[in-house]
Amino acid sequence: MFIAKSILPALALPALALAGLALPAFADPLPSWNDGAAKTAIIDFVESVTDPASEQFVPEADRIATFDNDGTLWAEQPLYFQGLYALDVLKAKAETDPSILDSDALKAAAAGDVDGVMAGGMEGLLSVLNVSHSGMTVEDFQDDAAAWVSTATHPTKGMTYADMTYQPMLELLGYLRDEGFSTYIVSGGGVHFIRAISEDAYGIPPQQVVGTEGNTKYEELDGKPVLMKHGGVSFIDDKDGKPVGIDRHIGKRPIFVAGNSDGDFAMLEYAFAGEGPHFGLIVHHTDADREFAYDRDSHVGALDRGLDEAAARGWLLVDMKNDWARVWSGGQ
Amino acid sequence: MFIAKSILPALALPALALAGLALPAFADPLPSWNDGAAKTAIIDFVESVTDPASEQFVPEADRIATFDNDGTLWAEQPLYFQGLYALDVLKAKAETDPSILDSDALKAAAAGDVDGVMAGGMEGLLSVLNVSHSGMTVEDFQDDAAAWVSTATHPTKGMTYADMTYQPMLELLGYLRDEGFSTYIVSGGGVHFIRAISEDAYGIPPQQVVGTEGNTKYEELDGKPVLMKHGGVSFIDDKDGKPVGIDRHIGKRPIFVAGNSDGDFAMLEYAFAGEGPHFGLIVHHTDADREFAYDRDSHVGALDRGLDEAAARGWLLVDMKNDWARVWSGGQ
Repeated sequence: MFIAKSILPALALPALALAGLALPAFADPLPSWNDGAAKTAIIDFVESVTDPASEQFVPEADRIATFDNDGTLWAEQPLYFQGLYALDVLKAKAETDPSILDSDALKAAAAGDVDGVMAGGMEGLLSVLNVSHSGMTVEDFQDDAAAWVSTATHPTKGMTYADMTYQPMLELLGYLRDEGFSTYIVSGGGVHFIRAISEDAYGIPPQQVVGTEGNTKYEELDGKPVLMKHGGVSFIDDKDGKPVGIDRHIGKRPIFVAGNSDGDFAMLEYAFAGEGPHFGLIVHHTDADREFAYDRDSHVGALDRGLDEAAARGWLLVDMKNDWARVWSGGQ
Repeated sequence: MFIAKSILPALALPALALAGLALPAFADPLPSWNDGAAKTAIIDFVESVTDPASEQFVPEADRIATFDNDGTLWAEQPLYFQGLYALDVLKAKAETDPSILDSDALKAAAAGDVDGVMAGGMEGLLSVLNVSHSGMTVEDFQDDAAAWVSTATHPTKGMTYADMTYQPMLELLGYLRDEGFSTYIVSGGGVHFIRAISEDAYGIPPQQVVGTEGNTKYEELDGKPVLMKHGGVSFIDDKDGKPVGIDRHIGKRPIFVAGNSDGDFAMLEYAFAGEGPHFGLIVHHTDADREFAYDRDSHVGALDRGLDEAAARGWLLVDMKNDWARVWSGGQ
C-alpha cells in the first residue's frame, strides 16, 4: 500500500489526481483578489496557523472563522436584503388583507417605499419584519425566502440577490475550509432567512449559521407538530450580541473574523482578546461603480469606529475597489 | 493505486490495518449492551440508514443524533448533578459572605440539604443556580465546573461524577459517530455546565451542545473584554423548548433521539413527525441495585406519558437492568 520513493516524481501527481485526492495548492486560492498587501496578509496568516512546524500553529478543532453576512458576504444596499424581502411579502399579504397595514411604516412597506419605512427608524423596519415573518412554519418560511433570493431582482442592479454574493469572499470561505477551518456566519440578520441561502450560496450548513432569533414555538398544525414563527425577537445577534451569540452556538473564540460595519466591532475585539494568533478583516465599501461606496454615515452597515481603530488594532481594511478583481459571484 | 481483486483475500485485512484504516466492523460496536431486542433494534436502524443500497439510506449531512444529558448520558439522582454543583458553590460563597443566604432555599442549599432546596420546587432550585452561577466569566465557570466533576464525589455512590456517565451510552455515541452521525447534546441543563464535561466525557465538542441559556453579557473586566455570567435565564431548553433549541442551533430535524423523561417527549415527537426514517430511545431507570429505579413519580426525570405512549409511537424503551451489561463508565 505504498509507492517506492524513486517512482514518486513520475507518478505522484497523476496518480493522486486519478484517485480523486486534492492536488497541492499550486493554484491561486484567491483568484478574484488582486495581488497586494491584503491578499498576502490573508495567505500568510492561513499558512502560519496551518503549518505544524510553525509557532503559530492552531489545531483544526480551534480553527474557527466567523463571517458577518450583510455587506460582508453579499450586498446590503439600499437596504438589508431581508428587509427588501419583507417588503415583498408584506405587499402580497396586504393584497389579501389590507387591514394589516395599520401604521405608516407598514403602509410604506407595502408600497415598496424604502425611505418611508426607514423614516420610522429601526422600529419601523422591525414592525415590517414582525408582520411579514410570522404566522408560518419555519420550513415554509425558508422555502419561500430561498425562492425569492434566486428569482427576485435588485432594484438598481437588476441582478438576482443570489448573484449578489461577493466572489472574493466565496473564495475566501472555500480557501479557509480547504485549510481545515470551520466557517460560520454570525449575522444581525435573521437565522431562518440566512439559512434559506447559506448552504447553496456559501457552502455553510444550517448548524453553522448564528443570527438574530425570532420567537418560535412548538405547536400543532393540522394535527402535525411544527415550529411556528411568531412576532417579536428573542435574541439580537448584533454588536455586543455577536460575542454572546458566538458563545451560545460555538463555545469557542474565533481566530478569524470578517465583518464590514461597527456591528462587527465587538466580534473582532472579542477574537483579538483571545490567546494565540488571530486575524481580523473589514470589507470597506469603496467601489461606487461596481458595488456601492459608503461608510461612516450609511443608514445600513455604518463603519465609523472600525475605520478609526482598524490600523491600531491590527485589523485588515479590505479596499473593495482596489483589492478585488471581481465583485459579484453571478452576472459575469 | 489499486490492488488486483485476486490478491485481496490474502492481503486486504493486514494491509488495511497497516495503513491505519478502519477494519470492517466485525467487533461488537456495543459490548456493554446485552444481546437482545434493544441492541438489535439500534444496530438494524443504523445499518439501514448507512447502507447506500437501502431505501432507508440517509446522507451523512442529515444523520443528526440528539441526546438528552441528565438521566440519559449520566445519572441524575438524588438531584441533577448541576444542582449538586450549585450547592457546593453556594456553600463556599456563603463562607465568605453569609448575607447571600436570604431565602430558605438558599440556606438549605448552603447546608447541603437537597430536600430543603426541593421543598421550594423548581423556583427554589433556580434561585440556587442564579446565585451560584453568576458573577464570573464563562471561562472561569467552565474551568471550575470541570474540576468539580472530576474530583467531587457522589453522596451515595461515592464515585466521582465523571465516573457516573453510562458506558453503554458512550458506546452508542461512538458507534453513531463511526457511522457518520453528528452527535449533539440537547439538555435542560445549562449549556456552560455541560460544555465543562462534554468533550472529555462524551467526545462532543462545545458547538454540539444545546442547553438552557443564562443571561450572558459582553463586558470589560480588568481592561479585557470578557463574557460574564449574570443571573436569570434567557432560554429554557426543556420540554417544548427542545425542538426550538434544535431549530436554533442545528436547523435540521434529528433522525436519532435519545432521552429518559417526559422532558424529552417533544424532542422525540418532533423527530418522528419528520419525513424519512427515525429512531427514538428512552432509557428507563429500572436498576435499583446498580443505579436507581424511578419513573412516573420522580422529582427529577419523571417518565409518565412517555412510558404510556412509547410502544404506540414506536419508541424503544431501554430497560437498564436487563439491557445493560455494565452501567458506569468508571469505577469498574
